[in-house]
Amino acid sequence: MPNFSEGRELARVNALELAISSVAGVVVLHRTSDPDHNRSVITFAGKPEPVLEAAVRATAKAVELIDVSRHQGVHPRVGALDVLPFVPLGPATLAECVELAHKAGQRIWNELRIPIYFYGAAATRPDRMKLEDVRRGEFEGLAQAVTVDQTKTPDFGGPNLHPRAGAVIVGARKILIAYNINLKTKDVRIAKSIAKQIRESSGGLKAVKALGLPLTSRGLVQISMNLTDYEQTPIPVVYAEVSRLATLHGVEIEESELIGLVPRKALEMTTAASLKLSDFDSQRVIENRIETLSRAIHKR
Amino acid sequence: MPNFSEGRELARVNALELAISSVAGVVVLHRTSDPDHNRSVITFAGKPEPVLEAAVRATAKAVELIDVSRHQGVHPRVGALDVLPFVPLGPATLAECVELAHKAGQRIWNELRIPIYFYGAAATRPDRMKLEDVRRGEFEGLAQAVTVDQTKTPDFGGPNLHPRAGAVIVGARKILIAYNINLKTKDVRIAKSIAKQIRESSGGLKAVKALGLPLTSRGLVQISMNLTDYEQTPIPVVYAEVSRLATLHGVEIEESELIGLVPRKALEMTTAASLKLSDFDSQRVIENRIETLSRAIHKR
Repeated sequence: MPNFSEGRELARVNALELAISSVAGVVVLHRTSDPDHNRSVITFAGKPEPVLEAAVRATAKAVELIDVSRHQGVHPRVGALDVLPFVPLGPATLAECVELAHKAGQRIWNELRIPIYFYGAAATRPDRMKLEDVRRGEFEGLAQAVTVDQTKTPDFGGPNLHPRAGAVIVGARKILIAYNINLKTKDVRIAKSIAKQIRESSGGLKAVKALGLPLTSRGLVQISMNLTDYEQTPIPVVYAEVSRLATLHGVEIEESELIGLVPRKALEMTTAASLKLSDFDSQRVIENRIETLSRAIHKR
Repeated sequence: MPNFSEGRELARVNALELAISSVAGVVVLHRTSDPDHNRSVITFAGKPEPVLEAAVRATAKAVELIDVSRHQGVHPRVGALDVLPFVPLGPATLAECVELAHKAGQRIWNELRIPIYFYGAAATRPDRMKLEDVRRGEFEGLAQAVTVDQTKTPDFGGPNLHPRAGAVIVGARKILIAYNINLKTKDVRIAKSIAKQIRESSGGLKAVKALGLPLTSRGLVQISMNLTDYEQTPIPVVYAEVSRLATLHGVEIEESELIGLVPRKALEMTTAASLKLSDFDSQRVIENRIETLSRAIHKR
């Protein structure tokens, strides 16, 4: 899921997407650009080899088209291709994504001479686990800092940042689910109070980030969430807890919404939990079973 | 999903399965044999062409191995391969299964000279919609009836049944979900009462068949159900209604269970309903989207 420091010039974003989709075996799943952030995210998927190749080509195209030293936008950034997280899908594991992130970092430094920082599960040092810590100071601050502070030296390459491309922050993480619950009230204090109670940072549910927001035009309020590990805290657990807290405030859930894409396994877990299913696993789903059996036959 | 009149001789059931799995492009998903019923069901899947071929080969193997005139078992039957329903999966439609059923019936009569009755969505007459109506009298009764009653004449072939293989009842229907809900009580009257209230035949939920049973060894009771059209009455609607009625009896749901396999779409519908999701469809599931996009690329 590369994040590019370009969200205004459509022709450039098209060229970045083409650099990715030109790799056989890769499909572009989703693309979003924000002109205020001046940033685009292009989500693509495939087997490890083509995904690695597409990531390197995307970085090459980014350094050709984007000059981060001239970039303006409200979103923090240190590179033309700013952040490059690898996310496991289907049978892939987080460990495989860490390996892929490290390979991608090595190739980008070797072939394009853009320095690399690793973050998330791909981090090589505890102080680089969090993206916001790695990105502190942004391009301008970090370009200075590396010249005087050895703790800021990139994991590959450097110490100086690339003059146009900055650095690429390469990582691996589990898929994140963006999930909102809308409440039948206009009182945003209720949303803020519930958000505070459920977010991990104030002692709530593990792997849940939450904000309370007004949806003024609809006369509702929203708990806007990121679920950073839906296996640790499944969606229906979040729904049930928000529902319980809303009831304490005398308020009902109007609806909930998934933003963007959600992995199949999250649906299976939601079904199992909401129906109190005993003895359920993904091989009980006809299409999953057909795929598993078809793969087994092809391997023979 | 062919139903064979053999559930005791493992070697024969193995041979029937092999006749099916020998067709390239077909996978056997599930197999079950019951010695009291003296009957086996072998569930297999694939694209229309190989599924049709496997159905014909299965029928040929059944007439070779099974003599229905000597068959004994508690389950009613008219043929060696007794019932052959085609069920839509994935992007397939019920109309395509009707077409496949009609092709299979024609081939079985043309190539094997076993007469065919069509039932379910493949029925050509209203009095043959229900399987139990077509099968009335079983092999022995129907073999007599066709000689004197023209309304009993098969849809293809006949009028006489095949001396060893009887007739094949070929059909098309939506997938059936076998679903049970277990209640925390030993009072089977509660299960029977709820089953009666929810089953379609006594004015309850559409496309739901239900029985109340004791689970003596576990100290629970069960509502045992067949959902014959989960799109008309989704699983969570059944769960919510049973939960509501159980609460009126002062009883809780212990758990529920899916028997056998369930289509992916049922999980998507369950997730959408249980989370009150607005604006959800199957293309929001990452793996579905990857499949759709990969197919589109391969077609280019």
